[in-house]
Amino acid sequence: MVATIGAAQYVAVDWGTSSFRLWLIGRDGAVLAERRSGDGMTTAAKTGFETVLQSHLDAISAPAGLPVIVCGMAGARQGWVEAGYLDTPAALADIVHAAVPVPGINRDVRILPGLAQRDPAAADVLRGEETQLLGAGDILLSGDHLVCMPGTHSKWVRVAQGVVTGFSTFMTGELFDAISKHTILSHTVGDGGSFDGTHPAFVAAVKQIRDNPALATNRLFSVRAGQLLHALPATDGKARLSGTLIGLEIAGALSTVDAGGGLCLVASGPLGALYRAAFAAFNLDPILIDADDAVRHGLASAARALWPQ
Amino acid sequence: MVATIGAAQYVAVDWGTSSFRLWLIGRDGAVLAERRSGDGMTTAAKTGFETVLQSHLDAISAPAGLPVIVCGMAGARQGWVEAGYLDTPAALADIVHAAVPVPGINRDVRILPGLAQRDPAAADVLRGEETQLLGAGDILLSGDHLVCMPGTHSKWVRVAQGVVTGFSTFMTGELFDAISKHTILSHTVGDGGSFDGTHPAFVAAVKQIRDNPALATNRLFSVRAGQLLHALPATDGKARLSGTLIGLEIAGALSTVDAGGGLCLVASGPLGALYRAAFAAFNLDPILIDADDAVRHGLASAARALWPQ
Repeated sequence: MVATIGAAQYVAVDWGTSSFRLWLIGRDGAVLAERRSGDGMTTAAKTGFETVLQSHLDAISAPAGLPVIVCGMAGARQGWVEAGYLDTPAALADIVHAAVPVPGINRDVRILPGLAQRDPAAADVLRGEETQLLGAGDILLSGDHLVCMPGTHSKWVRVAQGVVTGFSTFMTGELFDAISKHTILSHTVGDGGSFDGTHPAFVAAVKQIRDNPALATNRLFSVRAGQLLHALPATDGKARLSGTLIGLEIAGALSTVDAGGGLCLVASGPLGALYRAAFAAFNLDPILIDADDAVRHGLASAARALWPQ
Repeated sequence: MVATIGAAQYVAVDWGTSSFRLWLIGRDGAVLAERRSGDGMTTAAKTGFETVLQSHLDAISAPAGLPVIVCGMAGARQGWVEAGYLDTPAALADIVHAAVPVPGINRDVRILPGLAQRDPAAADVLRGEETQLLGAGDILLSGDHLVCMPGTHSKWVRVAQGVVTGFSTFMTGELFDAISKHTILSHTVGDGGSFDGTHPAFVAAVKQIRDNPALATNRLFSVRAGQLLHALPATDGKARLSGTLIGLEIAGALSTVDAGGGLCLVASGPLGALYRAAFAAFNLDPILIDADDAVRHGLASAARALWPQ
């Protein structure tokens, strides 16, 4: 069967801080067209969200009047239209009911809310990951799960019988960037090539921080000292920095909750492989859920609830 | 007694990465003149070290031909003349013998070496702090001591009977800067005012990280979430960021060594007061040694050994 544009049902958009992804979806969830760009919230806040969305719709010749479901930073206070936060404990099934319509626009656009944990001692927020959880499939609807969602701000979410009971954010990805570019380690890791979870420096760093997380900022400096005293190659330094931060995240998350119930890893590509390798150093073997698929399935799930066919 | 320039014996220079301090010293260690500027290694590497030094000497009309003792980054590989590293264990008394003369200059300039811990599992370096240790006084010459030297790269040094047996660096100050300026926390702490060790957010953050150091990067994100959900003021956010990083450093340092022998804090001004407050949260009350005095006394000690009067 060849899907045609004429069969389009709705448009799904994952609108992050620095990235924009759009899918034109047909009957039965078939992807008819896809767009990926750097028109994230930061860019769109200047250009105009409606203008950015329309330009991508025009580029794929999307039929006029199709409804659009959006998740991510477009719903932040500094985004397009604020789509608040649903407070924990929050049933995944309730997320869609809190979608906020965009007013004054010539089509039906709804933005999904984020989640908030208001306890002042553990205040936390997420936005975008709720849609991935919604799209992770039936696995989360029964039993207890601990879901690791790595990224710029990694989220660790506790889900019990389809209800998000709590979560914690770790600044892993953003710290990796800031430390690589804006500290003395920039001289050491700046020219480093790519590495993966089998790199000995990565695995060793994960194990070292697992055994003593308190030494985190000392382990970071050891990357610089290793270069000065032992000519540590840039790629090894980068792998050690990454292993230290990812290992610290896992050690921290596991220090407050038990992963015994069932551990899921929602990630894609090389990042997913890196986290799997780090989990192996903790003797953990999470169920892998593809993050790209999850967000699209979550948007589809919301669209089906909002606009039954 | 009024000291005169005529009585000048030597010049002492503490040449850091971004700071330059110079003292004109007379008999009995009297300070006859002082200069402080931003002509650190980074600037001097472009302008020329000899030019920078001479301009400061001219500014205080220093007599020609006075010898100059230098410590700090001027002796780094990317500095003026490399003054290598003395390997641990290193007797404080041996530092001066490893001073390196600057060749091809019309006066006697000696640069003191740094210290290196070459064990690949704990590779570490310091430069400048060895001179503060040398100037800390007789206290370090007998007994066992753990010396905390806070800063951009905080150093924790173990000294036994006047011998540096080992040390660890923590990237506390540099991480505070990088996180404040180059992560999402910049929106939260950027406009924060000054605070001190009595600030409840600082003390609470130290205690929280003391109780679970593994949660470090989660505690960092809580500063952002606290602002979003509970309007955490910028100054409180800054105090929480500082308390998290300083508390993590202390927890890390104490995780590998015993502070029972005798804990010294080499620091000056507000930073010293902040660390004392953080130590109090660990029920520790270190002996305070002024860092500015210590470096000057260390340079004086080296000068006396090199150029006996």
